[in-house]
Amino acid sequence: MKHEAHSIRRVSLYDATLRDGMQGAGINFSESGKMRFAHLLDEFGIDFIEGGFAGSTPGSRRFFEQARREHFSHSKIVAFGSTRRAHITVEEDSQLNELLQAETEYVAIFGKSSLFHVTDVLGVSAEMNLQMIEDSIAFLVGHGRKVFFDAEQFFDGYKQDAAYAMQTLEIAQRAGVIGLVLCDTNGGCLPHEIFETVQTVVAKFPQTCIAIHTHNDSGMAVACSIEAVRAGASQVQGCVNGYGERTGNADLISIIPALELKMGLPCIRDGQLKNLREISIVADDLANLRPDPSAPYVGRDAFCHKAGTHANAVMKNPKTFEHVAPESVGNQRQFVLSDQSGGAIVRQKAKELGFDVSESDPKLIRSVLKEIKQRELDGYAYEAADGSFKILLQKMMKQHTPAFELDGFRVIVEKRGKDEPCISEATIKVRVNGKEELTAGEGHGPVDALNEAMRKALTHFYPEIEQVQLTDFRVRILDPQDATRAQTRVVIESSDGMRQWGTVGVSENIIEASWQALLDSVEYKLLDDLHKQNR
Amino acid sequence: MKHEAHSIRRVSLYDATLRDGMQGAGINFSESGKMRFAHLLDEFGIDFIEGGFAGSTPGSRRFFEQARREHFSHSKIVAFGSTRRAHITVEEDSQLNELLQAETEYVAIFGKSSLFHVTDVLGVSAEMNLQMIEDSIAFLVGHGRKVFFDAEQFFDGYKQDAAYAMQTLEIAQRAGVIGLVLCDTNGGCLPHEIFETVQTVVAKFPQTCIAIHTHNDSGMAVACSIEAVRAGASQVQGCVNGYGERTGNADLISIIPALELKMGLPCIRDGQLKNLREISIVADDLANLRPDPSAPYVGRDAFCHKAGTHANAVMKNPKTFEHVAPESVGNQRQFVLSDQSGGAIVRQKAKELGFDVSESDPKLIRSVLKEIKQRELDGYAYEAADGSFKILLQKMMKQHTPAFELDGFRVIVEKRGKDEPCISEATIKVRVNGKEELTAGEGHGPVDALNEAMRKALTHFYPEIEQVQLTDFRVRILDPQDATRAQTRVVIESSDGMRQWGTVGVSENIIEASWQALLDSVEYKLLDDLHKQNR
Repeated sequence: MKHEAHSIRRVSLYDATLRDGMQGAGINFSESGKMRFAHLLDEFGIDFIEGGFAGSTPGSRRFFEQARREHFSHSKIVAFGSTRRAHITVEEDSQLNELLQAETEYVAIFGKSSLFHVTDVLGVSAEMNLQMIEDSIAFLVGHGRKVFFDAEQFFDGYKQDAAYAMQTLEIAQRAGVIGLVLCDTNGGCLPHEIFETVQTVVAKFPQTCIAIHTHNDSGMAVACSIEAVRAGASQVQGCVNGYGERTGNADLISIIPALELKMGLPCIRDGQLKNLREISIVADDLANLRPDPSAPYVGRDAFCHKAGTHANAVMKNPKTFEHVAPESVGNQRQFVLSDQSGGAIVRQKAKELGFDVSESDPKLIRSVLKEIKQRELDGYAYEAADGSFKILLQKMMKQHTPAFELDGFRVIVEKRGKDEPCISEATIKVRVNGKEELTAGEGHGPVDALNEAMRKALTHFYPEIEQVQLTDFRVRILDPQDATRAQTRVVIESSDGMRQWGTVGVSENIIEASWQALLDSVEYKLLDDLHKQNR
Repeated sequence: MKHEAHSIRRVSLYDATLRDGMQGAGINFSESGKMRFAHLLDEFGIDFIEGGFAGSTPGSRRFFEQARREHFSHSKIVAFGSTRRAHITVEEDSQLNELLQAETEYVAIFGKSSLFHVTDVLGVSAEMNLQMIEDSIAFLVGHGRKVFFDAEQFFDGYKQDAAYAMQTLEIAQRAGVIGLVLCDTNGGCLPHEIFETVQTVVAKFPQTCIAIHTHNDSGMAVACSIEAVRAGASQVQGCVNGYGERTGNADLISIIPALELKMGLPCIRDGQLKNLREISIVADDLANLRPDPSAPYVGRDAFCHKAGTHANAVMKNPKTFEHVAPESVGNQRQFVLSDQSGGAIVRQKAKELGFDVSESDPKLIRSVLKEIKQRELDGYAYEAADGSFKILLQKMMKQHTPAFELDGFRVIVEKRGKDEPCISEATIKVRVNGKEELTAGEGHGPVDALNEAMRKALTHFYPEIEQVQLTDFRVRILDPQDATRAQTRVVIESSDGMRQWGTVGVSENIIEASWQALLDSVEYKLLDDLHKQNR
């Protein structure tokens, strides 16, 4: 520690999203998506980006070709491969040659560190495996490459035969690697096992970059990475959002803020941590995955306070119930409206929605709270239904003018034979400023038909309703013990291309519940447009 | 360690799903769901089940009332509350009195262990807070309760003022608690911090149950729990599937197999670990959440091998790329390309129906598997729909005779004015053995009406259908980005008083999906009655 008094230790990061991450079920970036992602990581300050298994697909070949032509101001692109096969020379090994053809300054190759795998999977002798490691690295180094050695199954191998596992590292080191990557390939190790083993390895190879590469099969990959760094590892490998085969790789999105904010170890570019959430969201978008709302640091709910006592305390001082400041990772604090939350949240929400409630009667706040509480008992939930909340607030402030009068509607679902599809039709009669409109709609189901009919009726009067699209529709049966007689809660999310809002309806009848949510959706659109005009 | 040579240390488990878990955004079990869940945990062997914040809602009050009348063979139900408020006596504190009214043998109350929280959130003196803790515990102990003290913000408090944090534990201990619960309320601690602090506490209170209660804000709650156990904690608290506010609580579903399989510490009933996946899936179902496919141990992909080399090695020897045996936690190995799994399950299900498939063509097994795979792609899910699975199997074995012919049905939902309730009517025309029956039914919603009409039509021919009750009805919208045009999956649970069965339907149209599930429900009843007669 004496020597480090004036130099902050820096941990390097190695992103394996474009190789290991792509092994995750259903995860596949497009070719242009991969390149976009690599540039994002470059800007963020990730040191190494593994671009793929060199030569395994035409796509990965093209990635390395293109990467050579593009400028990366920080990140080094790494091509991935494996040690040579048994019984052939390195020159004869097509895979090693393809690795050279990627023409990257850095390469990574995996080899076996577990004697069990050497004999039982590879089916070669202990000695032969060592020779394969040595030859392959020497070959790549001889061609001017900087080589990482991925010691596959290192931790499990170390448990079974520590001497052999260490020998694989020694031989790799002697052959000239720049980094030894310790892999918990099956993700089965506990954090303290990782700590102890990494400590031993670091003591043995004090001058070499020791990297940690873990998988999340035990749900502890992030912790294992952190423990490895505490034990002296100088590089962490992982994937954005923890993508990867089975349960995924170590999640860099959780590891980075732990290193930077909690351990004081810088690992990305100065000032970039606030883009953490963006990196996570763009990756999900490229992978066509829904972001996990409860993801640490970056999830929608990561700083969302529901319990009333928590919410009140956070409004006084955020440190009371927040482990880091949400802005530091590009996220934001949220308060959820629920029957437990207090007046402060209602005021906060109303303000967001453009109502000046600082002036208004505290009685109003109390009556809003009471109404919310009653409605939540009835099954309403305003957490995801800001739109309905605003309409309710507007009604309680006696500021609400209905967009139209409903005279009635009828929805018919008919099936004319066992193998015929159901058809759905709806008719609706509304009046706007005394003018009557009767229209019909059909749809893929009763709610779709009702929605179509309502829109047709209203666009005559409010053409802006045409911009509104339903983007999500969720049905929740409350008290399901009553089966088909249970209360049904419908939450609809709508978008006009610029904004998104949620609305809610509750009834024994799913059509009635859907109707309430549809109605609120349209009224919210009109109300919000008005609010924007007044601004 | 000497003393433990012949006694295996047992770690106790405390499930907080029904209290802390319910703070998760969008998570809410129905009342009957809570009770069903508690019984599942009882059978599984969870020692303590926190039933809710006593008295906070009528729902939680009813839970404790009902729990008193029901039999739990293993689990102890715990009512949750807090220390008394400042400036009043314990007798005056309504919340403490409500805690007594829950009439549970065990209670848990939280109090503040962080001096910062005492002064800045609670706004009382350090001394007053200690008095509140002591009074409240003594009051509850005086009324015969066994009391856990939840030391809120213990770890953060310990970092800021260790002496004060320890004082809160000492005073709780002196007042007669049976357990001290160390909470990382903000989820910000790193595993080694938890380890060191728990070690200190355990050394100080060697005779007291020390529990660990962590949150997942850093993505390390599972690891923190495991580290606490290594440091000597004798109880782990968490929630099934890691439900909870913000990023959730420590996930018991990951902690339990780590304790049992990796640390050799039994914590649930013997032989129950194989039900781990079921517990996880039922909880998601009750919460109306999609199961996380990459969840450790229990996720659909947790043992899914995609990389060719991995899959080949696993087929030779599963230990090569699996950290635990999938069957040990009720999961199964899957290969992305070659679908080998499932054959055994198909044979098993057929046997339950009374079909001898050991004799039958292996071609049948393959075609059933192929059909299931296709249907699952279409949105069907058979995990909770045994009834539909068996009907499908019967159809594919060409053993199915339809109970009736459907000529058609029509469902009408009508609303005759803005404030009028919707009315729902259905008509149905069926034929049984050439005899036609046209009936009508009304209900609280379209599905209810259709169900009524069908039953009326069929009980003429099959009087046993009158025994069938729908006991649960769940709707899940698949591909919600298509909004009202999304596929809808309906799962119905039925009971005839003796047995329960689930059936499933999928369609763009919720009425059609419900119809499929209703039809399967009736046919399964008739099929199963027949099978019983033949036995």
